[in-house]
Amino acid sequence: MNDFQYYAPTQVVFCRGAENRAGELVRQYGGTKALLHYGGGSVRRSGLLDRVKASLDASGVAYAELGGVVPNPRLSKVHEGIALCRAEGVDFLLAVGGGSVIDSCKAIGYGMKYDGEVWDFYEKKATPRSSMPIGAVLTIAAAGSEMSDSSVITNEENGKKRGVNSDLCRCRFALMNPELTFTLPPYQTASGCADIISHTMERYFSGGETVEPTDSIAEGLMRAVIDAAPKAVQNPEDYDARACIMWASSLSHNNLTGSGRGGNGRVGDWACHQLEHELSGMFDVTHGAGLAAIFGAWARYVMPSAPGRFARFARNVMDVREPDDEAAARAGIAAYEAFLRGIGMPVCLRELGLELTEQQLDQLAWNCSFADTRTIGSIRVLTREDMREIYRLAR
Amino acid sequence: MNDFQYYAPTQVVFCRGAENRAGELVRQYGGTKALLHYGGGSVRRSGLLDRVKASLDASGVAYAELGGVVPNPRLSKVHEGIALCRAEGVDFLLAVGGGSVIDSCKAIGYGMKYDGEVWDFYEKKATPRSSMPIGAVLTIAAAGSEMSDSSVITNEENGKKRGVNSDLCRCRFALMNPELTFTLPPYQTASGCADIISHTMERYFSGGETVEPTDSIAEGLMRAVIDAAPKAVQNPEDYDARACIMWASSLSHNNLTGSGRGGNGRVGDWACHQLEHELSGMFDVTHGAGLAAIFGAWARYVMPSAPGRFARFARNVMDVREPDDEAAARAGIAAYEAFLRGIGMPVCLRELGLELTEQQLDQLAWNCSFADTRTIGSIRVLTREDMREIYRLAR
Repeated sequence: MNDFQYYAPTQVVFCRGAENRAGELVRQYGGTKALLHYGGGSVRRSGLLDRVKASLDASGVAYAELGGVVPNPRLSKVHEGIALCRAEGVDFLLAVGGGSVIDSCKAIGYGMKYDGEVWDFYEKKATPRSSMPIGAVLTIAAAGSEMSDSSVITNEENGKKRGVNSDLCRCRFALMNPELTFTLPPYQTASGCADIISHTMERYFSGGETVEPTDSIAEGLMRAVIDAAPKAVQNPEDYDARACIMWASSLSHNNLTGSGRGGNGRVGDWACHQLEHELSGMFDVTHGAGLAAIFGAWARYVMPSAPGRFARFARNVMDVREPDDEAAARAGIAAYEAFLRGIGMPVCLRELGLELTEQQLDQLAWNCSFADTRTIGSIRVLTREDMREIYRLAR
Repeated sequence: MNDFQYYAPTQVVFCRGAENRAGELVRQYGGTKALLHYGGGSVRRSGLLDRVKASLDASGVAYAELGGVVPNPRLSKVHEGIALCRAEGVDFLLAVGGGSVIDSCKAIGYGMKYDGEVWDFYEKKATPRSSMPIGAVLTIAAAGSEMSDSSVITNEENGKKRGVNSDLCRCRFALMNPELTFTLPPYQTASGCADIISHTMERYFSGGETVEPTDSIAEGLMRAVIDAAPKAVQNPEDYDARACIMWASSLSHNNLTGSGRGGNGRVGDWACHQLEHELSGMFDVTHGAGLAAIFGAWARYVMPSAPGRFARFARNVMDVREPDDEAAARAGIAAYEAFLRGIGMPVCLRELGLELTEQQLDQLAWNCSFADTRTIGSIRVLTREDMREIYRLAR
C-alpha cells in the first residue's frame, strides 16, 4: 500500500427535504450572508430556490443571488460572482445545483481571497492559500464536487478547461435529497452515471499495485452504479436508485477510492478525463457523455500495458467468466460499452454528434498535451501522438 | 435507502513515519500545550514516545504526560487526566496508542468541558455539549476510535462498561503508520481483526433493507480483513497486511458502512457488542476476543429471523456456494468461525478461558439488560431471556 492522505470533512445530510436545513447549516458554519449561486430556471420553477430561501430566512441568514451558471461553468460568471460577493459583503457561498454550480462557487471562493486574477490558479501560475466557506444543496449526482477537492472551470476566451485541486475548497456541508434529481432527464442521468463510474475508474486503473480494501470498495461502487443507472433512466422517480447514484457520486470522488494509491487520494490515471476536458472545452459536450465516448478507445489502447487489471475489472465488476486475462479484459471493455449503450450513452465521438476532421484531431491532441509539453496517464503514459491516436480510434 | 448523516472529518496521514508529523498537526489545529496520553511502557521502549516528543518540540508545542491507560480504559485514569489537564492548562489532547488510549482522551475531553462528573455522560444522565480537540498517533488497529464518534469507558467501582457517541469527540487528525503495529503480538492482532470485522457486521446485520453501495463496501472490507488477518498473524512485519488492517479499522467504524441505514451511521444490531461489553466489564477479557467468542452463538440464535442476509454474507464474504439460504447461512457462520480459529481466536466462552456458572449467566443477562429495563439488537430484538440463552449457548 502506498502512502496517502485522506481528508473528507464535508458534513453530509442525506434525506428527503434536506434542503430545508440550509439556513441551519450555513449558520452552524458561521455564515451570516450567503451568495445563493445556481444555474438555470429549473431550481426556480421547481420551488427549490424558494424553499432554500425560506430556510435561510428562518435562520436569519441574508443572501445575494447569482444564477445563470452553465454546464462547463465559465470564468466570466466566476468574475461576476467575485464582484457581487465583494459588493454585497458575502461571507458564505451556497451552491444550489450540481457540479458546475459547486465548481463555480469554489472558483469564486478562491477569487475572493486573492488580489490577482483567479484564472492564475487554473493555469497553475499561482496556488490558492485560502478560500471562502462553501455549502451545497445538490441537484445533480455526477461530478462529486460536493465532497471533492476539485474545481473545473472553462475560460471561454481561449476554450481552455482547467482544474484546481485543494482541500481548501471542500464543502463544509452537502445537503443531499435524491428527490431533487427526479426531474433530471434520462440523458443527463446517464451522463452523470458515466461520470461517477469514471471517477472510480480513473483511480482503479492507476497502474499501481493492488490495494485491498480500496479495490474492493471501488468494485462495489461501480457495481452499485451499473445496477442503479438503468433503473433511474427508466423510472426517474425510483428513490433507491437515485439515492444510490447520489451517494456513489460523492464516494467516487471524495478520495475514498484513491486510498492507499499515494498522494491525496487523487493519484490515478486521469487520461480519460484529460482527453474529455479538451473535447468539452472545444465543443461544449456533456462531460459524462464525453467520457463515455472516449472510454472504449482509451481502454483498448492502454489495456496491453495492464491486462491483469482490466481482467480483474471484467470479472469483479462486469461478471465476465473468461479465464484468459487479455480475452477477459476485452470482454469487460465490451460489456461496459454495452452497459453505456443500454443507458443511452455514446461509445464513440460520432455517437456524441462530433464528426472530427484530421485537423481537429491534431488540435485536440495539441491542446491536451499543453502544446506538446506534457504527457498524461499512468497505467500507460500517453504522448501527444498517443492522444491523437486515441481521439482517432474514438471517432 | 434510509435517511442518514455522514460526518468523518478526521484528517488521515497514512505512511511510514507519520508520527513525526504530530507537532505540525497539533499546531495546525490550534494546540499549544498537549496532553501526551498513552498506555504501558511499550511506546517508551520502542522509542515512539521520544519521536513524538521530538516532533512536538520541533513545532514549539509544550506537553504534559499521562501514561498508564489499560485495555478497557478506566474512569479513574480519566479523572486523573482531567485534573492534570486543568492544572497544566492543556489545550489539546494527543493520544499515542490504540482505542483504549483514544477513548480515554475522548472522556478527558468531555470532562474538561463539564462541571459535573464525566461518568454522567456514560450513564446517559447528561449529554456532552463540548469537547477538547483530540489527535491520535495510532499504534493498534482495532477499535476504529481514531475516526469514530465513540468512547467506551469502564467504571471499575461498579464493573460497568458504557459508551458515549458524539461527533464532538471525533479526532481532528489521525497519524497512521502501519509499522507501529509490527510489534503487536498475534493474539492482539487477531483480536483487533475480530473487532474490525465486528464493527462492519454490526451495521451489515442491522435487519434493514439492502443498501447498495453500502453493502458492497461492507463486504469488500470484511473480505479484505479476512484475507489480511492470517498474513499479519503469521508475519507480523507484513506491511501491506498491517496497512490493510489499519485502514479497514478506521473505515469499519467511521460510519461509512452505516451509510443509508439511518441515523448517524451507527444504526445497526450492536447486540454482540452489548453482550461482549458485559463480559469484558465483569472479566476484563480482550474486547475482540470476546466478540469472537460470542459471535457464533448470537448468529445461530438470530439467523432464522433473517436467513437471506446471513446467506448473502456467506456467499459474498465467505465464498459459500450453497443455493439454499438457511443452509448457506449456517455454512457461512461456520466458515467465519473457522477463520477465527485459524487466527487463534476463541469461538466460545470456554476457549476464552471463562467457565461460567448459572448464576454468572443470570448476572450477565441482568447487567446487559440494564436490570431488565432494555432490549438489545435489531435483526432480532433480544430480551433478558434471549441474552441469557445466547450467553449459555456461547459457553
